[in-house]
Amino acid sequence: MKHLLSIRDLDADTLTALLDDADRFAEVLTRSVPKVPALRGKTVVLAFFEDSTRTRSSFDLAARRLSADVVNFAAGSSSLSKGESLRDTVETIHAMGIDAMVVRHRSSGAPGQISEWIDASIVNAGDGWHQHPTQALLDSFVLRRRLGSLEGRHIAIVGDIAHSRVARSNMEAFTALGARVTIVGPETLMPASVSPWNVEVAHSLDPLLGELDAVYLLRIQNERLDEVLIPSNREFRSRFGLTAERARRLPDHAVICHPGPMNLGVEIDREVTANDTRVAVLDQVAAGVPVRMAVLYHVLGPGRFPAGDAGTPASAEEVV
Amino acid sequence: MKHLLSIRDLDADTLTALLDDADRFAEVLTRSVPKVPALRGKTVVLAFFEDSTRTRSSFDLAARRLSADVVNFAAGSSSLSKGESLRDTVETIHAMGIDAMVVRHRSSGAPGQISEWIDASIVNAGDGWHQHPTQALLDSFVLRRRLGSLEGRHIAIVGDIAHSRVARSNMEAFTALGARVTIVGPETLMPASVSPWNVEVAHSLDPLLGELDAVYLLRIQNERLDEVLIPSNREFRSRFGLTAERARRLPDHAVICHPGPMNLGVEIDREVTANDTRVAVLDQVAAGVPVRMAVLYHVLGPGRFPAGDAGTPASAEEVV
Amino acid sequence: MKHLLSIRDLDADTLTALLDDADRFAEVLTRSVPKVPALRGKTVVLAFFEDSTRTRSSFDLAARRLSADVVNFAAGSSSLSKGESLRDTVETIHAMGIDAMVVRHRSSGAPGQISEWIDASIVNAGDGWHQHPTQALLDSFVLRRRLGSLEGRHIAIVGDIAHSRVARSNMEAFTALGARVTIVGPETLMPASVSPWNVEVAHSLDPLLGELDAVYLLRIQNERLDEVLIPSNREFRSRFGLTAERARRLPDHAVICHPGPMNLGVEIDREVTANDTRVAVLDQVAAGVPVRMAVLYHVLGPGRFPAGDAGTPASAEEVV
Repeated sequence: MKHLLSIRDLDADTLTALLDDADRFAEVLTRSVPKVPALRGKTVVLAFFEDSTRTRSSFDLAARRLSADVVNFAAGSSSLSKGESLRDTVETIHAMGIDAMVVRHRSSGAPGQISEWIDASIVNAGDGWHQHPTQALLDSFVLRRRLGSLEGRHIAIVGDIAHSRVARSNMEAFTALGARVTIVGPETLMPASVSPWNVEVAHSLDPLLGELDAVYLLRIQNERLDEVLIPSNREFRSRFGLTAERARRLPDHAVICHPGPMNLGVEIDREVTANDTRVAVLDQVAAGVPVRMAVLYHVLGPGRFPAGDAGTPASAEEVV
Repeated sequence: MKHLLSIRDLDADTLTALLDDADRFAEVLTRSVPKVPALRGKTVVLAFFEDSTRTRSSFDLAARRLSADVVNFAAGSSSLSKGESLRDTVETIHAMGIDAMVVRHRSSGAPGQISEWIDASIVNAGDGWHQHPTQALLDSFVLRRRLGSLEGRHIAIVGDIAHSRVARSNMEAFTALGARVTIVGPETLMPASVSPWNVEVAHSLDPLLGELDAVYLLRIQNERLDEVLIPSNREFRSRFGLTAERARRLPDHAVICHPGPMNLGVEIDREVTANDTRVAVLDQVAAGVPVRMAVLYHVLGPGRFPAGDAGTPASAEEVV
Repeated sequence: MKHLLSIRDLDADTLTALLDDADRFAEVLTRSVPKVPALRGKTVVLAFFEDSTRTRSSFDLAARRLSADVVNFAAGSSSLSKGESLRDTVETIHAMGIDAMVVRHRSSGAPGQISEWIDASIVNAGDGWHQHPTQALLDSFVLRRRLGSLEGRHIAIVGDIAHSRVARSNMEAFTALGARVTIVGPETLMPASVSPWNVEVAHSLDPLLGELDAVYLLRIQNERLDEVLIPSNREFRSRFGLTAERARRLPDHAVICHPGPMNLGVEIDREVTANDTRVAVLDQVAAGVPVRMAVLYHVLGPGRFPAGDAGTPASAEEVV
């Protein structure tokens, strides 16, 4: 596995291997010195052409805990509006001698293009409405930890499916791992066709609540209101928001996820986030570091972690 | 000591212990490799919600010389104007697995609030008009080095006391360490009441000059002029500025401090800063690194530095 | 060699020693862990008072591969428009305990001034129209690798000589290393006098093409158009641009250089950059890291690299 561009490129075995390695890295993070020398001497560039403090910090920590060198390349998208300039920029960074580039870009497909231009490993950290594969991996990690397995589980993804890279990546990850997925939202926020995905569609959340193993709430973007795709936040909440009343109708074992930051009082109520232990939002954030360690290790390291025989201390395991 | 939120939380013994450890770290900084592995594997986030190149760089260097990992979290305060968002942001950073958060915020009390929200050690790097405890510690460090002890020394703090977190923290640190403190400035720049502090008040600097062991000049902020709290910079200088003439009337052993950046020709004249060896401004900057090492070590490390028996090389002393 | 302020300060032996060390560091960069502990414990501040992602990233990587600690000090030039403030800023950074400062500034001579104010090693990373010595070193490195030696080689530097620090530094480096240099461009873009340099002047590129060993194309800045120093980009290209037709008239062994970013269709055509292996632009970027390692090592390290006896592993050679 040289790149991570899309969940679609991964089969169930590879997804599972990544999650298994993330479990091992999560154990590393509980040690007094939570680091391994696995990527010592490797250079990872964080090329965020779109702002993202959370995802960038998470990749930054993940790379350092693997002992990689991290270079931040923050770029306003304005100076890179032409594909030509993006290519020049990326080729220039690559020429300095780097091993992996973590790319966030507002254009769908930009990380894929970059993987054709340069020889480094490319990790997609979110591209337009297309994909956000490490988000889907960390969400799968949390659901697997809370539910044991995704096999046969029923997960609703609720909100603005059409404009969400998180929804796209999660539909693919959850179904590949054996879950039954229903996407829920008003027709204006559904993709034109769902035939690329093995999912069901619903326009009402209420009938599903009692049978869900997980509900995944997406963030409502205010620009959707401006585009008149949603009548109002109040209207959205009344039909699709996870109110305390709706939360009560979820099974006790159900998991409540949101990629953050949450619009309290729109897709989820404060009463739910404040008191309901089924809310896994901070678990999702915490999962970001070991999951991204697993991804960087798979694209740059010697293979599965730990390297070497299972019974003996492997070089990748030595504490830095 | 889990947090450093306010000088008020520290008794004289703790203040002295911090300054003693800062002395030891100052010695570390003279070595050819000026580092110790004391905080290896610990992650320190610099969460500056208000710009500060100087204080941030000083904490950054301090954390690295202790071998901690440092993550910069730079945030425009605009996107975090609501307390709710600040909490979300802070909880998200914490969920990534960090040990300490160094916080600067324009709201008084923000670091204290954050210490209730998350389990990490919080170090206040300046909050509104409230406190700037590491500044007071580094100032105390410099005065103790230059004067031997603060016990019984007379220190004037001059300028805009009312709107200065530096003044608040220093009044508390200097008096706790046994100094006699007089705050000096026009009535418009004095706090409404000085009863919380064991200090004297004066509205003229001249009568005090001959008996001072130290004069601490605060920076005049231009917005005070806009608020008509000061008639003009010229007027302020004529009554409170440290001119060469006033400097001549200070004792030879007196120390002249300023937290920087200085308004030359307002609170202090260039003639003084250029030629007078009693000016300790660069000593104050230099003290920032060992003092902040001591603070980070106290909140995150195994206790006093060096750890272990005094006579044998302690693990915290080994060079990285 | 304490500072690197200008190519003019270096004699041919020192230039050659730097390039020889850069060759050795280029070998280090091919190792599986491309680092040496040569500058362990040293702190390098990147003080870029003018934006530069490329040069800054290159210095950042160079310093880390030498195991130095790197502190980024990014400053908008606006807050530092007065020389007085620059001095305060620089003295403050220095007081925190740093060993070298890499300076980019829009004012010619700023790095030289700074070297008089503070005791750290200063490396000029580009100052106004004055000098960009590490660019000239990396260009010389690439030309020496491709041509064997610069001795007796004929190099044309083409474009806006008058306003280019790259041109100034390269004229001096190339001639010091024994090359014959011709500067080529319209009269409006030539320096008022070329007597400080041992170079020839031409106002047409075409007659030279067949005899050149290298052609160095400078970037046309759009502000020169605004100042009516160039009639139009089209006019510039027709007289001085490296079109495919002109490239065909260059010798097979000739090297085509550009400091980047390129204006395709102005100083060089896309047809040339896309297909012509004589174009060395990415080699130039790649050379930046080992050349800047050599520079930092010369100003901060124990002298020539590797330190110690040639036949035995030197401490500077040990892998970190």
